[in-house]
Amino acid sequence: MYPDSLKNLIESYKMLPGVGEKTAERMAFFSINMDKDELEFFSKSLMDASNKLHKCNICNNITDKEICDICSNESRNKELLCIVDDPKSLYMFEKNKIFNGYYFIIDNLISPINGVNPEDIGLEKLLKFIHNNNFLEIIIAVKPSIEGETTTLYIKRILEGLDIKVTRLASGIPIGADMEYIDSLTLERAIEDRKEIE
Amino acid sequence: MYPDSLKNLIESYKMLPGVGEKTAERMAFFSINMDKDELEFFSKSLMDASNKLHKCNICNNITDKEICDICSNESRNKELLCIVDDPKSLYMFEKNKIFNGYYFIIDNLISPINGVNPEDIGLEKLLKFIHNNNFLEIIIAVKPSIEGETTTLYIKRILEGLDIKVTRLASGIPIGADMEYIDSLTLERAIEDRKEIE
Repeated sequence: MYPDSLKNLIESYKMLPGVGEKTAERMAFFSINMDKDELEFFSKSLMDASNKLHKCNICNNITDKEICDICSNESRNKELLCIVDDPKSLYMFEKNKIFNGYYFIIDNLISPINGVNPEDIGLEKLLKFIHNNNFLEIIIAVKPSIEGETTTLYIKRILEGLDIKVTRLASGIPIGADMEYIDSLTLERAIEDRKEIE
Repeated sequence: MYPDSLKNLIESYKMLPGVGEKTAERMAFFSINMDKDELEFFSKSLMDASNKLHKCNICNNITDKEICDICSNESRNKELLCIVDDPKSLYMFEKNKIFNGYYFIIDNLISPINGVNPEDIGLEKLLKFIHNNNFLEIIIAVKPSIEGETTTLYIKRILEGLDIKVTRLASGIPIGADMEYIDSLTLERAIEDRKEIE
């Protein structure tokens, strides 16, 4: 029913997360009315994402260079490494300027049900990174889930004997949260890790 | 903070309706992990939308030909014309196969506050279309709003003396609607246009 070019554009938008038929149609019709310049910019951005962006050779961060801006920044804290499972987590830390060390992004969280075993999370690259540096502390900051927990414990075990402090993010009640919406696991962890008021 | 190619992609997604910073980031990160083929298809679709899609010479429908598939379809009902204000409305009718005549898409709804006057809605092209055919009835099916109402009445006046029946869509309670959420204007119209039960 739609002309082919419009159909293809709708199909393209439908590939995006959270975009169904209706939204894709809305976006496609909107696109038709965009300036030629804007459409060209958009189109080129997608090609560039495909051609230029790849993983940093050292830490797996997304970059258009061989070594990402963080790994090549000599002024950061060389004693700290933070392990995350997603470039988005890295950008969350960076955006809020709450960490000044280096990062490593593992390929996956261990999840045997989904066929992800410990050898699939990219630890050789991590160990090489650690070997080439003198980190005093490694913070494991992966997703707070069963898979994240498994992965955290696995990495902790692998790093044993390296004489590096291994830590993880504190779990507990998010600031400003409504108590009645906190899940029981979080509540349990918050009780276990309770702190004396000073 | 982001590499340029990633930044550009986020900016691109932010141009879309209903897409804010967070969603654009999510879409961009997702795109990076898409297959090269998919990204190329997406990119090409955008360029095609820019280069190939334009308005039908006769009715303003979106098409990649000179005359759209509907206008060039000789087997449709030549006595009926339906005027809409948006290609999306046309596709809604077509998708549901509820109209078999021809269409005309006006450029705008009359809205003096927004600087859209009667001469801005593209009536010359409409009158030419009508002149070249023998429509017996013209259905005005523009948005049910103040602007739509103004536009409907204006077009009705313009068509006076042409000996063509001019109708509009019925207003009333949508099927399956919850009465308490119906606005008062719709309710008023539904009472005015009430029909005898046969």
